[in-house]
Amino acid sequence: MAIRVGILGYGNIGRGIEWAVSTAPDMELAAVFTRRDPSSVKIRSNAEVVSINDIEKYKDKIDVLVLCGGSATDLPEQTPRYASMFNVVDTFDTHARVPEHFGNVDAAAKKAGKIGIISVGWDPGMFSLNRLYANCILTDGKDYTFWGKGVSQGHSDAIRRIEGVQDARQYTCPVPEALAAARSGENPELTTRQKHTRECYVVLKEGADAARVEKEIKTMPNYFADYDTTVTFISQEELDRDHKGIPHGGFVIRTGKTGWNGENKHTIEYSLKLDSNPEFTSCVVAAYVRAAFRMNNEGMTGCKTVFDVAPAYLSEKSGEELRKTML
Amino acid sequence: MAIRVGILGYGNIGRGIEWAVSTAPDMELAAVFTRRDPSSVKIRSNAEVVSINDIEKYKDKIDVLVLCGGSATDLPEQTPRYASMFNVVDTFDTHARVPEHFGNVDAAAKKAGKIGIISVGWDPGMFSLNRLYANCILTDGKDYTFWGKGVSQGHSDAIRRIEGVQDARQYTCPVPEALAAARSGENPELTTRQKHTRECYVVLKEGADAARVEKEIKTMPNYFADYDTTVTFISQEELDRDHKGIPHGGFVIRTGKTGWNGENKHTIEYSLKLDSNPEFTSCVVAAYVRAAFRMNNEGMTGCKTVFDVAPAYLSEKSGEELRKTML
Repeated sequence: MAIRVGILGYGNIGRGIEWAVSTAPDMELAAVFTRRDPSSVKIRSNAEVVSINDIEKYKDKIDVLVLCGGSATDLPEQTPRYASMFNVVDTFDTHARVPEHFGNVDAAAKKAGKIGIISVGWDPGMFSLNRLYANCILTDGKDYTFWGKGVSQGHSDAIRRIEGVQDARQYTCPVPEALAAARSGENPELTTRQKHTRECYVVLKEGADAARVEKEIKTMPNYFADYDTTVTFISQEELDRDHKGIPHGGFVIRTGKTGWNGENKHTIEYSLKLDSNPEFTSCVVAAYVRAAFRMNNEGMTGCKTVFDVAPAYLSEKSGEELRKTML
Repeated sequence: MAIRVGILGYGNIGRGIEWAVSTAPDMELAAVFTRRDPSSVKIRSNAEVVSINDIEKYKDKIDVLVLCGGSATDLPEQTPRYASMFNVVDTFDTHARVPEHFGNVDAAAKKAGKIGIISVGWDPGMFSLNRLYANCILTDGKDYTFWGKGVSQGHSDAIRRIEGVQDARQYTCPVPEALAAARSGENPELTTRQKHTRECYVVLKEGADAARVEKEIKTMPNYFADYDTTVTFISQEELDRDHKGIPHGGFVIRTGKTGWNGENKHTIEYSLKLDSNPEFTSCVVAAYVRAAFRMNNEGMTGCKTVFDVAPAYLSEKSGEELRKTML
């Protein structure tokens, strides 16, 4: 019997999950839950669209609910709440608040006999896993994470809030020299400015002062002031034509030494190059939906992260088949 | 209390484990077991060196035994045998015989209430894990594994068996154009010859016929005939000076498509660059020694592979600490 998947929130991630579930031989989309008027939400597949207010009626109709809200306000409240009714998976990505979120989800899920897998995606997610594996192997070493080249929605939004800006797209770019230095095994200390540059493509409103906008961007604290930032003004047509996608990616590198005199150097590198950040994230989430279902079927409950999930749970193949084909 | 580790076999891997255990804050080396006369085996640390004939006496003195023998004849016999007395970890790397080996170790370990983790290292091992994760995420895609640049002991040995050869070192090298093609996402079909070249450094015995040796190498079935092979004759001094190390590494790449029309391409890449193949392998093994100990303490028994081990078991850090620092 297929794993019956529910989706809460039909944004980029929700749509990505819908696609990923449609391609999984062992899953079916049972329902999309929304805070909007269900009749106003058109989805691709044949699943029901249901008001969030009716979600409790689906307690026995859904095996795993995927929470596709934002990390700032939605998930801290939604994940614990729905972990008391369903196995859940979320993409909570506020690294600093993970311990608190974990505690809340763990309590709710344990009480309900459910599983909640939090912070699934690529960072946190696959990047975290690679940091962990690499640290357990090369215990005497140094970690580097680079992001990009990719679109940062947060930084794009920050530019859009500046007076006189009509639209904007911001790319985070790793600096090739810093990447090379990290890989070298020389354990360089790299500053924020050395590691990444920020490329901004900005559409001005009519009559806006380009010089002022550029200065406001480049001096914005936290977002741009610590980086070498370039600002390129383009037309809305150009932005729509050349900067429509949501690519991203990055690099997790760990270098370390082994041997009685630290004489041997090693480099472990994991990298992603993604045409669509939300679709890739959704693919990771779909694999952990499968894991949540199977782990809960085996009697496991409580909050989990990617660190707690044995890799074999992610595959629809049997252990025997995996050992034969992938080991 | 520290995890008490035993080592069976004091070759390159055994020595690597000895070093890795010496750096692990939660492990201690309890004994090195050998088929040789124990008094003839000099080890770096203070642990006992014990005849293999006395190993049963250590049943309660060792938490995890690492089996460092060869995959051809040692491990198929040793791992099941010692899984009936100890938690064990091995580096069994004959991919085709994994199912059979798994079955034998599983039966022995389950009967004894122990855990046996087999095929630990980087391939099989970390490369297998990356194949699995990438396949579970990008379900519509294609895998590529490249090895090198690195020393192949098997190929070096094959050259040494040729008449007139005094010594030899063989490097397996990925072809840069093939790597680029794999990363492109165009899903090229790559032949054996297209993916790797083989570089041979050969020391001839006095009076040996260089042309005949070169021809014998280049036409050797399975080992060299399917590859573009270069043979360079050097002196023993040059070989000892320039080719003493045991470097290795490689690349696991998966490319795939997402979206209702397959419109978005993605590339996942994992790579290793290792100065010392056996020392890196030993570091991976040490992490799985910790996992074997902890999983068995939680009541798990039977044969496991890297696919069955939740990543958190590999770290001596608590789940809380891992979530705080690495997620």
